[in-house]
Amino acid sequence: MTGFLDAESYARAALTYLAEPGDVRLGALIRTRGAQQVLDAIKAGDVAGAATQRAMQRWRVRLEGIPSAEEVAGFCRSGIRLIHPGDPEWPGQLADLGDAQPYALWLRGTADLRFNCLCSVAIVGSRAATAYGSYVASEVAASVAARGWTVISGGAYGVDAAAHRGALGADGVTVAVLACGVDVPYPAGHKDLLDAIAAQGVIVSEWPPGWNATRLRFLVRNRVIAALATGTLVVEAGQRSGALNSARHARDLNRRLMAVPGPITSDLSAGCHHIIREWQGVLVTSATEVIEYLSPLGAPQGAREPAGAGESAGAGESAGAGESGGAGESGGAREGRAGTGSRAAVLDRDELDPETAAVLDALPARGGMGPARVAVRAGLDLRTVMRCLGVLAAGGFAERCDAGWRLRRT
Amino acid sequence: MTGFLDAESYARAALTYLAEPGDVRLGALIRTRGAQQVLDAIKAGDVAGAATQRAMQRWRVRLEGIPSAEEVAGFCRSGIRLIHPGDPEWPGQLADLGDAQPYALWLRGTADLRFNCLCSVAIVGSRAATAYGSYVASEVAASVAARGWTVISGGAYGVDAAAHRGALGADGVTVAVLACGVDVPYPAGHKDLLDAIAAQGVIVSEWPPGWNATRLRFLVRNRVIAALATGTLVVEAGQRSGALNSARHARDLNRRLMAVPGPITSDLSAGCHHIIREWQGVLVTSATEVIEYLSPLGAPQGAREPAGAGESAGAGESAGAGESGGAGESGGAREGRAGTGSRAAVLDRDELDPETAAVLDALPARGGMGPARVAVRAGLDLRTVMRCLGVLAAGGFAERCDAGWRLRRT
Repeated sequence: MTGFLDAESYARAALTYLAEPGDVRLGALIRTRGAQQVLDAIKAGDVAGAATQRAMQRWRVRLEGIPSAEEVAGFCRSGIRLIHPGDPEWPGQLADLGDAQPYALWLRGTADLRFNCLCSVAIVGSRAATAYGSYVASEVAASVAARGWTVISGGAYGVDAAAHRGALGADGVTVAVLACGVDVPYPAGHKDLLDAIAAQGVIVSEWPPGWNATRLRFLVRNRVIAALATGTLVVEAGQRSGALNSARHARDLNRRLMAVPGPITSDLSAGCHHIIREWQGVLVTSATEVIEYLSPLGAPQGAREPAGAGESAGAGESAGAGESGGAGESGGAREGRAGTGSRAAVLDRDELDPETAAVLDALPARGGMGPARVAVRAGLDLRTVMRCLGVLAAGGFAERCDAGWRLRRT
Repeated sequence: MTGFLDAESYARAALTYLAEPGDVRLGALIRTRGAQQVLDAIKAGDVAGAATQRAMQRWRVRLEGIPSAEEVAGFCRSGIRLIHPGDPEWPGQLADLGDAQPYALWLRGTADLRFNCLCSVAIVGSRAATAYGSYVASEVAASVAARGWTVISGGAYGVDAAAHRGALGADGVTVAVLACGVDVPYPAGHKDLLDAIAAQGVIVSEWPPGWNATRLRFLVRNRVIAALATGTLVVEAGQRSGALNSARHARDLNRRLMAVPGPITSDLSAGCHHIIREWQGVLVTSATEVIEYLSPLGAPQGAREPAGAGESAGAGESAGAGESGGAGESGGAREGRAGTGSRAAVLDRDELDPETAAVLDALPARGGMGPARVAVRAGLDLRTVMRCLGVLAAGGFAERCDAGWRLRRT
């Protein structure tokens, strides 16, 4: 959906304006009647059932705010895309949220969300992280990212920022799931960091472009972080931290839950110890242990030798905000990138349909190519090319880059 | 056995000179033939079986070193006592060691070993403890001791010393299990600490008075620490620490095993994290959690309100070495002592036999009274009085003090 807009996409986009995410009444309506019919019904005030009617009243309040199809298409031309269930880039694991799954997701960035979440770890924790928490988050993120794991976090100060920066510094992929629009620089001090994430990973939101975060939205957002990731690692969290909310979602979704221990004299490790003691979270002390716990039994665990936190190459804060993706700065980081080769494509090349295979043949190995040019080379229409690119990205064959699309390096 | 010596006691004492502790061949011989016959057999070189004969050769090497009955009695007059299986003060849980259980134990100090180990926690860890480890050991020891739990440790530098001092500072009971004679000031810097432990608790050793520690003896000693205690808490330990040896004994003896987490960046917490991850040790963050885990379900857990590490009254290093028991310095410590009242006597007063009841009636509530004077007041011979005092101590009715014996404060 980059530059064109079908009716389903438009309806999904509009619904993200009308209702706060996670509304299970709206989720159930979409499941039974489809997004377009639900949008029409809201516009017409046409519902059955008193409870739904009350919710409908609330949704109708925002009817005047929904954008035109042209405005939504405008977002897409500006580098923001919308995905929804059924899209090739839609992460199927979000279905575990049931009727609370997002109506749609707004994305900004080069990385394919579905493919990159196949092997991913959410690294979350306190905004007011200690030096210890920031260090551990950054080192573990760098190590797992260097071995091809995607680091998911919330874009906030503290542990979140350290995790994103660790992954970026290792030339890895990182996903920021925000509680505001994907184009909103929030917190303001993270404008450069968010741009760097978009350049090397992807920014995700359930809220439309331009919308602001609220306290409630952070909590609602947390379920998406937990659902997207293979497992969740809490690095530092007070007893009442929002990170415990993410951890609870992970547990309730049967995702793997881990926590980093710390001094019992530190309030910011109390939440981590609670997770280990009370929620059967696994105590982890290194990136190696994180990957061991998340990997299917017997699966290869990255091309590099195991290295504990503190031993990873090209790690940390130095890669900081403001550096857009592309070339890694350090030799260590490049080595790390090579580690992603151990993550096999999820589809066999022979399983591709003829049109997708044609698009794959048309893609360049270096640089990048816009979808329109790919369409010309492959002899296909733009819409088919977009669908095929989604399949190729989800299958690990192709990836977005600044200049468009290219073969995924293996 | 204070001032007189029966044949069994003498034989057991002599055997502690002949064989290193934990020799299961000697343990099996004692079990089947009795200590006196085994001693006679070693003296006579009379054995069956080639394997035992080789061991016998080794034991016979030390025959010249065994003391006379008079020498052993001399130790006892100097404040050292010997206990062995069958004595009222013998802790029955040592039988869990099977044939590796001590042949006898040399004791120095006022506290009754059996009674005080009924509710006890071994607090062990690295000699090279960090400030964090020493702080946690001292605070947790003070809190559990203030609630009537006995703190058992090894008398070494680092975590051991902090644990002993924490218990002493809270006016609690602490037990030091040494790898040298109970009268040997080892390490030399702990002479005052060991004297303070003897005054307020008890020092325990499998080796005769005057014997020195060796590297191997520390490891052999660790099984006794683990076996005596209801549970073992490892505060700080490197991956190759002797504390892990204690922890392994605790696990193998089905004792409860706990560890204090710490920064994953600290080598001295690596052993603790290993215990939690690999040995199913329970992560604990406070004295309250230690007591919860060790207490039988539904049992009262001390008279005081739960308090985490860092909240305990009258804790820590300030009470240090060189202060002999008796009066606590701080109000908090006195309060803590009152907490021991929640630990009920293990026998009902009505269950006492007439002689033991007579000794109980003869005991003073304050001060203290020597066994000979108790014998006169109770109208019993000294030997019977000694037996009865053991029963009373084990039952929680009486306790040793500097001046002899008195009623146990409740």
